[in-house]
Parts: sequence; structure tokens; C-alpha cells
Amino acid sequence: MISQLIQKIQKTKAPICVGLDPMLGYIPNHIVQRAFKDFGETMEGAAEAVWQFNKEIIDNTYDLIPSVKPQIAMYEQFGIEGLKIYARTIEYCQNKGLLVIGDVKRGDIGSTSSAYAVGHIGSVKVGSNECRGFNTDFITVNPYLGTDGIKPFVNVCNDEDRGLFVLVKTSNPSSGEFQDRLVDGRPLYELVAEKVVEWGEASMDGDYSNVGAVVGATYPEMSKILRKLMPKTYFLVPGYGAQGGTAKDLMHCFNEDGLGAVVNSSRGIIAAYKQEKYAKFGPEHFAEASRQAVVDMIADINSVL
Amino acid sequence: MISQLIQKIQKTKAPICVGLDPMLGYIPNHIVQRAFKDFGETMEGAAEAVWQFNKEIIDNTYDLIPSVKPQIAMYEQFGIEGLKIYARTIEYCQNKGLLVIGDVKRGDIGSTSSAYAVGHIGSVKVGSNECRGFNTDFITVNPYLGTDGIKPFVNVCNDEDRGLFVLVKTSNPSSGEFQDRLVDGRPLYELVAEKVVEWGEASMDGDYSNVGAVVGATYPEMSKILRKLMPKTYFLVPGYGAQGGTAKDLMHCFNEDGLGAVVNSSRGIIAAYKQEKYAKFGPEHFAEASRQAVVDMIADINSVL
Repeated sequence: MISQLIQKIQKTKAPICVGLDPMLGYIPNHIVQRAFKDFGETMEGAAEAVWQFNKEIIDNTYDLIPSVKPQIAMYEQFGIEGLKIYARTIEYCQNKGLLVIGDVKRGDIGSTSSAYAVGHIGSVKVGSNECRGFNTDFITVNPYLGTDGIKPFVNVCNDEDRGLFVLVKTSNPSSGEFQDRLVDGRPLYELVAEKVVEWGEASMDGDYSNVGAVVGATYPEMSKILRKLMPKTYFLVPGYGAQGGTAKDLMHCFNEDGLGAVVNSSRGIIAAYKQEKYAKFGPEHFAEASRQAVVDMIADINSVL
Repeated sequence: MISQLIQKIQKTKAPICVGLDPMLGYIPNHIVQRAFKDFGETMEGAAEAVWQFNKEIIDNTYDLIPSVKPQIAMYEQFGIEGLKIYARTIEYCQNKGLLVIGDVKRGDIGSTSSAYAVGHIGSVKVGSNECRGFNTDFITVNPYLGTDGIKPFVNVCNDEDRGLFVLVKTSNPSSGEFQDRLVDGRPLYELVAEKVVEWGEASMDGDYSNVGAVVGATYPEMSKILRKLMPKTYFLVPGYGAQGGTAKDLMHCFNEDGLGAVVNSSRGIIAAYKQEKYAKFGPEHFAEASRQAVVDMIADINSVL
């Protein structure tokens, strides 16, 4: 699966994914009001607004990008109706030729991780049928429970040619509270990184492993070290743009071949029309603002590679 | 919210929760076949089997217990259809007077944790309405991202009088891989425990905080220390029964007042009819076997208190 992502990145010259994290507050009023008119001020109405918003952004950006990363929490907040739109968004993106990274950050004891794995990147046996739940190409997972909480995801990846990104060093301000604590003189995230390498050894797909890592753009010195520790691990890099990471900050996430990282931007793309820089598009043309923000992001990142 | 759980524990004399983690393999054949007949060998069929199974177990145990803990992964594996049954199970249990601990182990950066929090234990604003997604009383959360990933959950708990259990020391075999690593001479889980105390300080509800901790039954020496470190923190204790924890192992999870812990058993209760001990009930009377297993579990735990 990672080789497919790399091919799409090379074809588009865009090592990025667009974060489809649609807070209601990001969605232009005309879309929200139309959805409320059709479905009421209900979960169904909110979900419809999210769907119309996503669809327009995808339609206006899919030819420029290799992948998207929907954050499931933004759908889950609207309950079942929201999750239906999560599933619909995945399918719609895949039909447009995009790879989908489900940002689900799941992780549990072994038998439970197995259930998450089959539901998100695999299939579940129902009688004599194999049924697919959310059918994403990649998901993010949380390593706090250790190897037996991660292995079931790796097994499904190997069986189904899918991919993972394991949280190593996250982009948020307090990520250091536990992740940076020194164990035998080294930060915990380095130990996690070494485990990620180990977990991914039997999942090579070309030059990289299907088991990747989440490494925040907001901590450039750390990503430099992590890049060396995990030479064959693809990085999913959140934190660019709205969270404060710049192109210069994330250059260390890439290998010398210009590969090795896919950089996410969510708010910076999907709510671009709210920025002064893109205000000329106006709320009616929000998706064209998103398209321009994608073009600008790609140029910005390529300027440091 | 924790005071409500304590009241129900005192009334039932049962410091336990029943883990509603319905793998298809646990469900008696007559239920599965009936569901497949009505809905086909589909996600809908699987979800219907899960629902009928849950309902019968709840109907046969609700008067003996204070709470249940559905593991969302077991529903999520069946996609949208499974999650509908997760929501229906929560509502059904609450209507029977049970408190529901959603075992979701969510956790992300701040804005994302906020979305999970409103979706699971709070409400989301849609136009002028407040809508509820999954509406559980408690959820479990993962601390790997630190304070800013947990605070949004705590805030919603405080606003809505709900509760949390933060993963501290999990019950699985490899939990020690990261959780036990020494930081300044002390295991990481102790640092997490101290943070849980700090996070819960402004969430007191009677003698205990609404911010609890997950502490596995399988590591009794550690729970002894954690009990002292977190005197006002309620423990959700997985690992009893099928995972190997005994009543003696978990006595240290309780305070001297006999309070302080709620012990979970999943397989040991819901698939009791598959154990030799309860084989006499047979698959047709599986829920009566579950009832007997609940009676036995309560007696077993009370024998060490």
C-alpha cells in the first residue's frame, strides 16, 4: 500500500494529504442553511452539511493530491449520521483515485485491536461472506498498550496490503509530557520509534514499510533524529500550517530521495476561505480557495526539498 | 457521575461491570442463524445477532449489577450497522437503570479530543439544538498525547456530570513495554497516575473524582502502589477472569472503605455458557448461565473485601 502512496506522490509531485476535518464552524453558511432546510437542525442536517462541504473540496482538489486524511472524531461527534458521512467520504475519495488515511488513533488489547483492524482496514467474516466496515487504505494507531495492541493491525495490513501510521511524536503542545520523558537517557518517543521499525520489518512494500509513523511538524529537531532512526518508515506529518509548523520545519522528515513523508494540512486547506490571503474567493467559492491553498502548500513544501 | 456509580454499587453490593463485547463467535448458533435468516449474512445480520445476544444478557443480569461496559470496537467492526447497535445497547441499558461505561479509548490533540468528548459524553450544538451522539455515562481515554489531549474530556465531564477512566496500567501482556519504563527511577504509569490525580482535582463528586483510571487486575503489585498514589481516583479494573486476574489479585485496587474499584468481566460473563462450569445451561439458556456467572463473580470479589 505504501508503494501506491509513493507512486501517487511522485505523479502529483505533492507529498501531502488534505485533512478532511470538517467542524461545523468551518462550513460556509449557505451550505449549512441549505442542509438545515432539508433535514432540520439535527444530526442528519449537520451530517449533510459536512458531506456537501467535503464533496465540493474533494471535487476541487482531487487532481492535485495523492491522499486525504479524514479525522473520524469530526464525524463521530455527530453520532451515527456523522459516521455514515465518514464512510461515504472514504468511498467518494477512493472513487476519485485518492488514497484515504483514516485518522482514528485506535489501539487496545490484542483481541480488541483485531476488531478495530478488521473494521477499518480489513474485512469481517459474517457467515460465508467477508464484509467491509470503513475500508480505509491506512489508519493511525496509538502505541500506549505495546506490541500486542499493535500486532493485530500489522497482521491485517499484511493480509490485505493496507498501511498504518503509529503515533510516535505528536504535534500538540503537551505531547512532550510523556513522549519526551527520558528512559535510560533517551526520550520515550525514540523507544516507540524503534518498536515501529521492528513492527514494520515484515511489512516492506518496495523501499518503505507499510507500517509508518506519525511525527509532528512542530518539533523539527526531533524529526531529524527520528528520520535517522527509522530510515524505511514513512512519516505522516501533522502540524503544518494552522498548528504552526513551516516548510522549513518539516524538511528533516524527508529522506535524501525526497521521499519518506506525507504532510497533512486540515484547517489551512479546508477553511482557507476564512484566511485573509484567500478572502477574495468568498464563502460561495470556498472550494476554489481550498484549491489555491493546496497549490500554495505544494509549492511551499517543494521549495525546501 | 461517580457518586451515582458508587450508590448503585452499594445498592447491588456488586463492584462490577459486565463487559458487553460480543464477538460473533460468542453468540449461540440459534441467535446467529435467526438473524441471518431475517437479514442475510450481512453487516445488518451480524448486528442483529449482537443486539439479540446483548438484550438477553441485559434482561437476565440488570437487577444484579450497577453498570455495563460495551467495548465499541466489537460494534465498530461491523461498520455503521454495528455502531447503531452500540447506540441502541447504551440506551437500552440506561432504561434498565444501568450506568454505561463506553470503552472507546479515544484520545487526540485538543480540538479533536473535544469532538470525541461531545460525541460520546456530551452534546454537540447543531443550529439552536443540542444533539447527543452516543450518550454514555463514562468513557475510557488514552493519555499518550498528554494534558491537552485529556482536558477537553475533563471539561465535558464537568459541564455534563459525566466520568472518565484514563488508561494508566493496562491488563495486556505487553503493557509494560512502554508503561513500565523507568523515568527518573519510576515507571511511566506512575507519572501518568499523578497526572490523572491532577486532571481530576476539579472534578470531585463526593469522595471520589469523576476522572478515574484504568488499572489492570493482572498486575497486583502495581495496583497496590497505584491505589496509594491515587486515593480519590476510582479504578476501572479489566483483566479479571478470562484474562487471568483473580479476586485476590484485585483486592489492592480497593480502598479500606471497600470502595474505589469497579471490576470488569467480559468473556467470563457473556460467554459463560461455553465454560464447563456452566455447560449445563446449554446455548439455549446462555443468558441464565451469564446470570449465574454474575452471581459467582460478585461472591468471589466480595470474599476478598
